[in-house]
Parts: sequence; C-alpha cells; structure tokens
Amino acid sequence: MLTRAPALDIPTLASALEIFGRARGIIEASDTARERAGIPAAASEFLSGPTAALNPAERAWLDNPRHHVVPFTDPHYPALLRNAARCPIALYIAGNLEALNEPQLAIVGSRNPTAYGEDTAREFAEYLAARGLTVTSGLALGIDSAAHRGALRAEGITLAVLGSGIDVIYPHSNRPMAAEIQRQGALVSGFPLGTPPRPLHFPQRNGLIAALSLGTLVVEAARRSGSLITARLAAGLGREVFAIPGSIHSPLSRGCHDLIRQGAKLTETAHDILSELNFSAFFSNAAPAPTGLAGPAISAAGMDKEHKILLDALGFDPADLDVLVVRTGFKPEAVSSMMLILELEGHVQAAPGGRYSRVVRSRR
Amino acid sequence: MLTRAPALDIPTLASALEIFGRARGIIEASDTARERAGIPAAASEFLSGPTAALNPAERAWLDNPRHHVVPFTDPHYPALLRNAARCPIALYIAGNLEALNEPQLAIVGSRNPTAYGEDTAREFAEYLAARGLTVTSGLALGIDSAAHRGALRAEGITLAVLGSGIDVIYPHSNRPMAAEIQRQGALVSGFPLGTPPRPLHFPQRNGLIAALSLGTLVVEAARRSGSLITARLAAGLGREVFAIPGSIHSPLSRGCHDLIRQGAKLTETAHDILSELNFSAFFSNAAPAPTGLAGPAISAAGMDKEHKILLDALGFDPADLDVLVVRTGFKPEAVSSMMLILELEGHVQAAPGGRYSRVVRSRR
Repeated sequence: MLTRAPALDIPTLASALEIFGRARGIIEASDTARERAGIPAAASEFLSGPTAALNPAERAWLDNPRHHVVPFTDPHYPALLRNAARCPIALYIAGNLEALNEPQLAIVGSRNPTAYGEDTAREFAEYLAARGLTVTSGLALGIDSAAHRGALRAEGITLAVLGSGIDVIYPHSNRPMAAEIQRQGALVSGFPLGTPPRPLHFPQRNGLIAALSLGTLVVEAARRSGSLITARLAAGLGREVFAIPGSIHSPLSRGCHDLIRQGAKLTETAHDILSELNFSAFFSNAAPAPTGLAGPAISAAGMDKEHKILLDALGFDPADLDVLVVRTGFKPEAVSSMMLILELEGHVQAAPGGRYSRVVRSRR
Repeated sequence: MLTRAPALDIPTLASALEIFGRARGIIEASDTARERAGIPAAASEFLSGPTAALNPAERAWLDNPRHHVVPFTDPHYPALLRNAARCPIALYIAGNLEALNEPQLAIVGSRNPTAYGEDTAREFAEYLAARGLTVTSGLALGIDSAAHRGALRAEGITLAVLGSGIDVIYPHSNRPMAAEIQRQGALVSGFPLGTPPRPLHFPQRNGLIAALSLGTLVVEAARRSGSLITARLAAGLGREVFAIPGSIHSPLSRGCHDLIRQGAKLTETAHDILSELNFSAFFSNAAPAPTGLAGPAISAAGMDKEHKILLDALGFDPADLDVLVVRTGFKPEAVSSMMLILELEGHVQAAPGGRYSRVVRSRR
C-alpha cells in the first residue's frame, strides 16, 4: 500500500469528505463521482476491495492472522472515528480486531512525568481497565507507557496508536510492551507500512486517539504540549475531557490546570470518570471478567429494559448516536429506532448536531 | 453594650431587614416604625447615637483612640457588608478604622494545613498585600495565620475578623500577632465585648469575612469544612471565589477541588487574582507605597478618565455598584451617575439584581 500512498492521503480525504458530507457518502458514491472529488483511481479501487490491491510487502505482513487492514468501508472501522472530521482511509491493526470497537478512554500526558503523574496514570488505567474500559494511548514514554502498563497489569484491553507505520515500533525501548499490547489489545496505525515516526505525524496520531475514545484523560502536561492538542481535539469532537489537578508549583500540572479552566472535568478518582461517562451503570451487571471483550449481556426480554439501558447510557449531557452505540453495545439501527421512541415519549430531546440529551422531569 | 444585647441580635435585625428591605430603610425609618418591626427601643436609641448608650466597660474600652464602635448608620460601616443579607448592627474595631473600607481579599483555609498550603497562603498574602490589596482572614491557626503573617511581612494591611468579642483574642497563641494586626490593620468583631469564642459564632464570623471582601481565596480545605462555608457565602453574594488545586491524594485539597468543580476559579498565581478582580488595572499607577491606605490618586482632569477607570474596574463579569465603589475608590453617587452615562453610551449593560457588566464589542 506504500506504493499507493495517495489512497491514504489525508488532505485528499478531507476534501472528499467536504464534497460528500460524511464518510458514508464516499463509500456509497460511484467510482466516477469519487474521481470527480479528486480521489485517485487506486484509492477508489482500494475502497471497493482493499486486499486485491496490496503490494507484496503488505501481503507478507498480512500473512500473520493477527494483522489486519481495515478500510473505512469495513464494519470493523470504529464508528466514533468514522464520524470525526478527519479519519484515515484505512487502519492497520496488529492484535485483536474486536478491541477497536470497545468503549475507550484515552489516557495521555507528558513523556517526562513526575512520579505523581506516572503513578496516577498507571493506577487509573489499572482500575478502569479492570472494569471493562479499554485504555487507548500513544505508546510514548512517560504517561502513555504508564497507562498501557496499568491496563496490561489489570489484564484489561489497551490500544496503542502509533505515529509511524504499524511495523515501526517507536520508541525502541517500548518494543517488549508493544508485543504485550498486541496480545492483550492491539496496535493501531493510520500510516502505511514502513512510515518512520516523524514530528508531523504525532498531531495526526493524537487526533486518532481522541477520535477513537469516549473521553480523554490528561494526567500531566506542560503548557503548549502535545497532550493538550489531543484534549482540544477531543473537546472539538464533543467528547469528555478529564484532567488531573496538581501542585501550583509543578510545571507539568499547568497544562491540566489550563484545561480545567477551559471546562475539562477536574478528576480526583477513576470513579469520577466512570460516572461521567455513564459507564458504570450498564457495565456493573456484566460478567466480572475484566479481560472479556464482550459487551454487557443484554437481555432480550422486551424493549423496556433496553430502553432503560439506553437512557442510563445517555445522561444529561448531549451525546450522539455513535457514542451511544459504543456505550451500550447495541446495534446502530436499534439505538436509532429506540431513540426515536424515547423522543416521542418525551424521555429525550434532540440537540443541535444530531445529538440527544435526557429530559429533566420535575418530581412531585 | 453587652447589657443591650438585643441591639446586636442578628435574627431581629434579619427580620427588620425583611420588613425595610435594605439596611438604609432601617436607618431612615422613624423610631415608631422601627419599634413596629421588632427593633427594641434600646437598639433604636443606639442607631440614633451609639456612644450615648454605652455601658461603663464599653466606655473604658473606647478610651483607647484606636478602638471604635461603628453602627451601620456610620459612613465607616463597609458598603459591601451593608449590602449583605445579614450584617451585624455594629462592628467593633481595634486598629485602623480606614482599613475597613479598603478593597479586601479573604484568604481562608484549614487550621491544620500542609506545608504546601501554609506556604501558598503566606506567599499569596505577601504578594497581594504588597500590591495594595487588604488581606482579610479569621485569626485561626493554620491558613488564616499564614495569610495574616504574609500581609504583615509585606507591611501591607490585614484585617482579622473574630468569632468572639474584640477583647477576647482566640486562640491565645495568636495574641502577639493580633497586636501586630492592630498596628498594621485592624481586628474586627460583630459580637459584644466579652463574648467568648463559641462554635456557633464561627459561621457568622465566616459570613462577615465573605461579605467584607471582593473575593475569597480558599487555600486548603477538607470536604465539609468551615472554609467552604465562607466560600459558598461569598459566591451567594456574587463575589469571586478562588481555590488552589493540589494533589488528588491530599485530603486538604478535596474541598478546593469541589469548589473548582462548582465554578470557583482555579488559581495558580497571585496575579490570577489581581487580574480576575480587575485590581491591577487601577492600582498599578498608585504610589508604590504598599503600606499606604489611600486609594489611587484619581485625577480630576475631566470625566473621561474616570469613566475609563470605572470601565476597567468593571470587567465582563457582572458586578454591583458597591463592588465598583470599593474597586475604584470613587464615591457611590459618582459611580451611580457614571454608570448611567456608560449605560446610555452602550458601554455597559444592566444585569439582573442591580448588577452591571461591560458590553463586548466586535472589533473590525
């Protein structure tokens, strides 16, 4: 696919998205319409049947049954990512393909954290991963590594999103951990095989982390650091942003304090995150297997119970349907029709941008 | 005055305030109208001419020229306090009477702070007092003491508001500091001479601290502690609340974190406070004498400059006229008429509750 680099060209994709609206438009368009929108024939061909168009290096890489290429026409392509303004035309996955659609929390921060930050990242990741939340981060040194390590320790799921080709593990010292992550979760990249890690790639990688996740927790970050970009991208997508406060004398808490002043949730405990994401409500009845990838066992005993679960998952902050799909584990069509019923019954109301929120009723 | 305790009875005063509206109503009412409102004759007499109605102990106490009784009919009675829902019918002052009407910041917090909290309180108080802001606190151990000490060190002004009679210094270990505070600022009490410190008095004392101040800074506070009451009372009066963040593992930062989640300004530097209070804008040109009690030297060279000062003092958060009087040092009548002009010229707009805010203009 390296030879067909235009297929993965993000500016081209972005302009095509402007023409077709959402990703679905590109998927459903004819080859001719795609060509008019500037999408190269090779990319068009790739969208119709990616594996037919692979180069020998890619074919060799795909020989490993844990290696996958997921174009955004694929049902495995994460719904939350497809909705983001800029998404890679395909993801390279090494590890568990199903992990991609698990409800995720991004945990990010400084590459040179204090012991306070490192411990916090590891402990939060361990606690949350044990409760079924997938921990997504960037495989960098410092906070990212501590987050992955915490999730691995809990035998939970963790995703490492790379700023390089999926076959280029950076930094080298994290290779053993990357191997573990492949076993317990997955490595994810939007860049072609062999792409070296370059400074320009990291903002794109950060955008991917933000877009994959229901929310982003910034543990420690200096002012004007990359983690704040991840947080701002998350906020721009309407996702929750969480930040850990710290000493006013710690330069690595200043970025977090700035985020809190700008509206991020000041976060003291991992439980704050679960309750803000409305996550505990529907996972508390799940089988107590923290490594399980399955969502909650939804009883089919009638719509009422499912409606209740959906309502619990919604909360009073507006959320869009894709977020609800991830939170509940229900099928998109089911969520869509249930929301219509809930809206007609006056339980929820539509907000701008296709989002919904619960209706507050006064109790008597 | 101890013998005329009804004159200082806060529930009676509160109900009279309900009948007359604001304090001015009580002041202007006839003795008969006051009596109908439940104000005892002795209190009425006191309001008309307090010194005529003193008991021998009070007369003896007033022999000291630095000792004062300020009924709320007195022009020295602080405007910000008179506007609060519940204000003492008179204040006992030991020290500099003028300090009472200086722009004040309350600095409060735990009696058992960490070194982090104690250092922060002292350093903030020192910095702010050196820049002309009066530091108001409660003479308690811990954060209160550190705040007074910082202001004293800067040779600035500090007010200690007592939960006992002004002649009863509590805790005993703070007597030497109380003596210093009398020289550089003032002790303040709303309780009659000889009143012992009782737990019930401290919430009233906290309310007095909040009402005297343009804003309240909580440095360290456990959940459900008295400092949070001060902060809530300040917020209820529409004053700014500032809180210092800290480690998520520190129980004494939890109260501050709760306040931040409820809308208090996360505060990293003393400068944050000056700029939030719009304080630096009009004190930066003042004579560089941190001990001076005088407000800024306002030039009488025409209204335009005064309007500018008033506008700078206002900021974009709504503030009421009394706050502006304290911030600018202008006379209430002048502020009132200038605000009318500024409103007619479209520079400010009236907000509910008699408050004003600046109008944001788009720049071209």
